[in-house]
Amino acid sequence: MNLDEIKQYLTEKNYDAMLITRNNHFLGQDVLETENRILALTGFSGSAGTLIVTPEKACLFTDKRYEIQAARQVDPQTTDVCCGTKETLIGWLQEKFPGKAKMEYNPWCLSAQEADTLACRLPKLKLIAKPATENLEPASVFAHELRYCGIETTEKCRQVTEFLHQHGCNACLICAADSVSWLTNLRSDALPDTPVVRAMALLRADTGLTLFADGLSFPLDNSCRILPLAKMEKEIAAAKALTFAFDKQNTPEAVRKMIEKHDIRTLPVTDPCLGFKARKNEVEIKGIVNAHLHDGIALCKFLYWLENTDADLSELDIVEKIHELRTQQPLFYSESFPTIAGVGANAAIIHYQPTATANAPLEKNSVLLVDSGGQYFNGTTDVTRTVALGHPKQEMIEKFTIVLKAHIALAAARFPRNVAGNVPDVICRNIMWRYGLDYNHGTGHGVGCFLNVHEGPQNLSLHGSAYPLDENMVVSIEPGYYRENAFGIRIENLARIIADEDTDMLKFAILTMAPLDKRLIDKYLLTNEEISWINDYHREVCQKISPYLTEEEQIWLKEACSSLS
Amino acid sequence: MNLDEIKQYLTEKNYDAMLITRNNHFLGQDVLETENRILALTGFSGSAGTLIVTPEKACLFTDKRYEIQAARQVDPQTTDVCCGTKETLIGWLQEKFPGKAKMEYNPWCLSAQEADTLACRLPKLKLIAKPATENLEPASVFAHELRYCGIETTEKCRQVTEFLHQHGCNACLICAADSVSWLTNLRSDALPDTPVVRAMALLRADTGLTLFADGLSFPLDNSCRILPLAKMEKEIAAAKALTFAFDKQNTPEAVRKMIEKHDIRTLPVTDPCLGFKARKNEVEIKGIVNAHLHDGIALCKFLYWLENTDADLSELDIVEKIHELRTQQPLFYSESFPTIAGVGANAAIIHYQPTATANAPLEKNSVLLVDSGGQYFNGTTDVTRTVALGHPKQEMIEKFTIVLKAHIALAAARFPRNVAGNVPDVICRNIMWRYGLDYNHGTGHGVGCFLNVHEGPQNLSLHGSAYPLDENMVVSIEPGYYRENAFGIRIENLARIIADEDTDMLKFAILTMAPLDKRLIDKYLLTNEEISWINDYHREVCQKISPYLTEEEQIWLKEACSSLS
Repeated sequence: MNLDEIKQYLTEKNYDAMLITRNNHFLGQDVLETENRILALTGFSGSAGTLIVTPEKACLFTDKRYEIQAARQVDPQTTDVCCGTKETLIGWLQEKFPGKAKMEYNPWCLSAQEADTLACRLPKLKLIAKPATENLEPASVFAHELRYCGIETTEKCRQVTEFLHQHGCNACLICAADSVSWLTNLRSDALPDTPVVRAMALLRADTGLTLFADGLSFPLDNSCRILPLAKMEKEIAAAKALTFAFDKQNTPEAVRKMIEKHDIRTLPVTDPCLGFKARKNEVEIKGIVNAHLHDGIALCKFLYWLENTDADLSELDIVEKIHELRTQQPLFYSESFPTIAGVGANAAIIHYQPTATANAPLEKNSVLLVDSGGQYFNGTTDVTRTVALGHPKQEMIEKFTIVLKAHIALAAARFPRNVAGNVPDVICRNIMWRYGLDYNHGTGHGVGCFLNVHEGPQNLSLHGSAYPLDENMVVSIEPGYYRENAFGIRIENLARIIADEDTDMLKFAILTMAPLDKRLIDKYLLTNEEISWINDYHREVCQKISPYLTEEEQIWLKEACSSLS
Repeated sequence: MNLDEIKQYLTEKNYDAMLITRNNHFLGQDVLETENRILALTGFSGSAGTLIVTPEKACLFTDKRYEIQAARQVDPQTTDVCCGTKETLIGWLQEKFPGKAKMEYNPWCLSAQEADTLACRLPKLKLIAKPATENLEPASVFAHELRYCGIETTEKCRQVTEFLHQHGCNACLICAADSVSWLTNLRSDALPDTPVVRAMALLRADTGLTLFADGLSFPLDNSCRILPLAKMEKEIAAAKALTFAFDKQNTPEAVRKMIEKHDIRTLPVTDPCLGFKARKNEVEIKGIVNAHLHDGIALCKFLYWLENTDADLSELDIVEKIHELRTQQPLFYSESFPTIAGVGANAAIIHYQPTATANAPLEKNSVLLVDSGGQYFNGTTDVTRTVALGHPKQEMIEKFTIVLKAHIALAAARFPRNVAGNVPDVICRNIMWRYGLDYNHGTGHGVGCFLNVHEGPQNLSLHGSAYPLDENMVVSIEPGYYRENAFGIRIENLARIIADEDTDMLKFAILTMAPLDKRLIDKYLLTNEEISWINDYHREVCQKISPYLTEEEQIWLKEACSSLS
């Protein structure tokens, strides 16, 4: 159905609204373009969005990162756009439907938590469930080898089962695709940038693991019990004697309805895979460090090329070149997300991606923002560098330096154990605020190991996850500054959280290995400690990357990493 | 009943536990010593505590500020002590009573919110309500004059009624004593340091305000309708046609039971007085600034005296002297809390108060921490100064300077509108963490105007209130450092939140006027910005306070406030 057909359907059914999410039954996971209903209905390609269609008009809800992009992509004649929080959507519904009203939704595409919030906050709005699982594209499944993942799936199942016992449970449904991928050490080629296996799982303490998946071809030596998703309800019913750990946030409302229908005993427990997956094991850490070395080599080669080429370049040339250089690195599998390469005003669009029809030439005397990453079999990378083109304006240099100060404030910080990501967020943003500046996105996100480039449960955000930060989690640190219609700056490194040797606190160890553009640094804005941090970081980058470069590249890197004094 | 009698009572009734709170039916408000059941039962005099008595033993739950004090005051033979959060109490109950159990409590002394939390987190624990309102000591009520409170009670009622209408309500029960005091512009002498009127109120959009109070003598010209608390239920029943704003957190469970019994329609709305009361009006601001001027005069006179007296002093001498000097100031009414004066190791006990039996002499070569405040008719003050005695050790100077850096980091910070108190908390603590240090208490609290010295809804705390900070709120900024059995440092100023003139952000304007002890500052640990902040602050203190001092005091203050260069 297109928007008009939905409106007509609502009128015929006498419904007041239809709620349409961007995700399929793998909540919050990436979707293929062909699976993206928000894109099909509105043209909006951002990674977050919910659409409410009423018989009169549609309204798209997304967040502030997408303010500019949504305004460009969505036709205001058919669809209003609201950039805010989940609260904005709730508030809009409360205002729109103060009295009794009916809204259709697909309980496979909404979490039990989201359904509860709607029911609780909008008691008069009747939610009409129309369940439908989507037919996903067929895909091949392959093993994530032990030398990369570090722990056998049998051992992971044992650990998770023990965790379940500790929480008074002996069964668990795992509906998040990345949790299932981590637990089974399986990956697939279903999505272009994210090698998750889109399957759900039932883990029973007594009989072990069953996967539910459609359209996937598993490797022949796979020992898992695999059933179509349609068999899930029967398996749930058969586990009636067990106590299930139940994670409202990661379970589709449709699955909760099955659990309730069969009177399964549940206890509220967060998806037990989340905590294990977030704390990388020793083999993963080794692999992630190695993946960042090779990603750094590709990046340094790219930065050398950019500075030394005579060609007239466009944004898409940047995207292609960085891809080409990454593919030359060992263990490279794919990009971890579509490369953002924005010049000048395009860099101010936080999730801008050049296309054949929107592909700006690299202007002189400006800045280029490149946010890209790779999936390597041994780790996932995500890095943003903002680089000078010609002679950037003094304002660009000033703002780059302030963003760098904010980056360093966090990268060099120490903070107590058991705090959540709001603490690092404030440490970083505090520097921006000092200059009266801010950025409309989180300071950082968790990152998987050959998995999602945005991975929970932790993130670095003022209003984000309350999950405590811990050793061996990998997060991004990515403050930015965006002046609409002018330019944009972001400096992003991935970092591992490690124990501070001097106290009982935590700190960061930077993983990303690529120089920060000194042509954009105003050293008179920096403290001595900040200058030392930059020099130490550049020294490490030069030492590690140099051996893998050509002679010309080495000379360039040595200069790019030379001391600020 | 004493502890033994309670244990026997539980055994006879076949109950598993009794929950006893420190507060009476005015939840979270100060209580008289004679009304403090936790003090009577355990000897613990701290301002936060909940006691669970079982037939075997009692367990006192308080927070980390009181770790040392509780260990000193409570007999471990009869009572265990747990210092943690509300979560600690819940966890303890969950562990102690995994199956069915019965716990008696007084629904007048527990908020509806707390009752819900217990019921939800401990579904198998049967809560047996035994309602009993306490007989409070008789007290006299007097008017808070318009020249101090700024807005007539009729106008306040109109504003609150309008707020209720905006939230779909036309009635409201106000159970918090400070809210009622603010709304009625009444104060009383019931408590030694907090001039609240311990009354509850029903505000109806149609018929106006009714107070419920026992044992209070109101001024003759009072126009309020006043009924005994026992009539509250009848008044609620008579308002059946109205929709009540209902604040779970500030309403005793006993009152909710009345509301439910009479089938009153309610909507969840935070006590509407809170937001109005927190944002001080122009008259209040003027008064608060003036109260801080006079409090500063008393403090400067005290600091001069301390530095120049030859007498051998004890902690109680400090308490008496500062009280004597405050009483000489115009509009002084009482202290705002019992003065904390701790020397050396006593300063490490966050809420230490000297008594006739525990009254240390001022040691040489140490530090003295004095945390005190006054209730003036035009404002409430709260200030901590840590001062040198003789030649303090280098470690004391170093730690004082770090605490001062943390204080300045926040006092000079800028932060966006609509953030809560966790943001300033991190800005301040971030400096402590940089040195591997921290403090076991919040960074600050709201402050009333001739009302509670600890006033919500806002506070500056990592795990505190989510209420957004706003212009004209008054808060304390009070980082500290405490080394058990050695020494303690705290630097506390009150500050008003104001709009930043250069951005759309917020910042602080310091209210407290008293020098910071330069003998404890190691200027080599300070940045140029920090030194400028201190010099600017001292210049302002000197300019404002000097005209009110004797010639000798003026000479001293000029030196105390001279520039760090």
